[in-house]
Amino acid sequence: MRLRNLLLTVQYCGSRYHGFQVQKNALAVATVIQDAVETVFKHRLDIKGCSRTDTGVHANRFALSLRTSLPIPCDAVVRAMNVNLPMDIAVLGCREVEEDFHPRYSCIGKRYIYKIWTGAQKNAFLSDRAYHYTYPLDETRMDALARAYIGTFDFKSFCSAGGSVEDTVRTVSDARVWRKGELVTFSVTGTGFLYNMVRIMTGTLLEMQLGCRPPAALLDVIGARNRLLAGPTAPAHGLYLDAVFYPDFALTEEHINPVLL
Amino acid sequence: MRLRNLLLTVQYCGSRYHGFQVQKNALAVATVIQDAVETVFKHRLDIKGCSRTDTGVHANRFALSLRTSLPIPCDAVVRAMNVNLPMDIAVLGCREVEEDFHPRYSCIGKRYIYKIWTGAQKNAFLSDRAYHYTYPLDETRMDALARAYIGTFDFKSFCSAGGSVEDTVRTVSDARVWRKGELVTFSVTGTGFLYNMVRIMTGTLLEMQLGCRPPAALLDVIGARNRLLAGPTAPAHGLYLDAVFYPDFALTEEHINPVLL
Repeated sequence: MRLRNLLLTVQYCGSRYHGFQVQKNALAVATVIQDAVETVFKHRLDIKGCSRTDTGVHANRFALSLRTSLPIPCDAVVRAMNVNLPMDIAVLGCREVEEDFHPRYSCIGKRYIYKIWTGAQKNAFLSDRAYHYTYPLDETRMDALARAYIGTFDFKSFCSAGGSVEDTVRTVSDARVWRKGELVTFSVTGTGFLYNMVRIMTGTLLEMQLGCRPPAALLDVIGARNRLLAGPTAPAHGLYLDAVFYPDFALTEEHINPVLL
Repeated sequence: MRLRNLLLTVQYCGSRYHGFQVQKNALAVATVIQDAVETVFKHRLDIKGCSRTDTGVHANRFALSLRTSLPIPCDAVVRAMNVNLPMDIAVLGCREVEEDFHPRYSCIGKRYIYKIWTGAQKNAFLSDRAYHYTYPLDETRMDALARAYIGTFDFKSFCSAGGSVEDTVRTVSDARVWRKGELVTFSVTGTGFLYNMVRIMTGTLLEMQLGCRPPAALLDVIGARNRLLAGPTAPAHGLYLDAVFYPDFALTEEHINPVLL
């Protein structure tokens, strides 16, 4: 039997989970998906994810692959998986990919968004889905600062100590901030991200807009290659993996689309 | 000491709760709020709500009152309550009201909204916050039908058997349906609502738009005063108490506003 390589687009609210990656003594998104996969495919299958996500981080679109010889049509995989998954994890799409495709190593870019709730009061529907920021927030100033992230830089100032990579150079192709009512969103697209990079980028934007610092000051922080000069790490629960890009397609708004990067 | 009557605007995501009303052997919103009130006011106080809500029903704005002689300023009540409440319950505002004010008996109207998710796939962020409807939905047709609810009618066709009231005449002052992307919302404002009335109104709209029935057919269902002729009761988790109206003010978007009814 030919082994099919299936790529699933997965959406999850991370509040109940200790990140994506399977862990001992803690509930992970991958563990729950593996159980559903075992029910649907009648076998314990290995699943590969496009990245690790931290505890409390969400995904609008996360890429995940598995290999099976069962001839279940992609539409039926989506339906069967959704019936067997809890309500905070959903499969949005499924497609067959090349044999050597790997959701992590084939990935050429990702988009993250960070949601900030600026309402005067707590919001019962957003407490675990957006960071409640109660200081003044000027989204125009923050947007101007965010543009300074665009380019190829050594982002060492934006990498937490836990990171193990040696090469901290990354390319950011887009970064912007906008407001809709009391919700402010920071969106950043790039070839790859260091450990906690988006959360530190967010914390730095918030701190610098509050101090009315110009974009040039942010370029200085990047140039310093020193974590101590960047802002605090914004909390995990505002962060969403929003899109994943591959050479021939991308998981974006319409789930599976021409490359946007 | 003078006893102050405080009115709190409360917001909650009802997914984890067995409705608002205190119950034996089940977690209710009121039970959790009473515990927070006891911590903040140093006494077990009686709290009065503007209505009962069913298991899984949400509230954007719910009115709740309590009496205390403690001179805690309203702003401080909001802050202290929010710190002591779980993340899915929030206090949006607090104001002092007349001694004889009662959130339920002084109420002259309420607005409910019902959220319908029409996306082809499950949504991990909306599973417990909107009804996933996968049949075709024409919101223009549904809106035209909804307008037929406006007026003073005997709504007996829209009352579940559990209801104990004798007078089933109610006045609906506004009813409309709109779409934003894949989310369709039904909003209805009225002087009062029968048991499950909004959920049956929603189920009837969905059924009649699917069958391309005209608004006149809906008027026939109202006129029949027969529950069997109305549509099914839509699930609880799409329903939100959205606004509460009193003679001198209303709890609406801006929390405490001039009367809009």
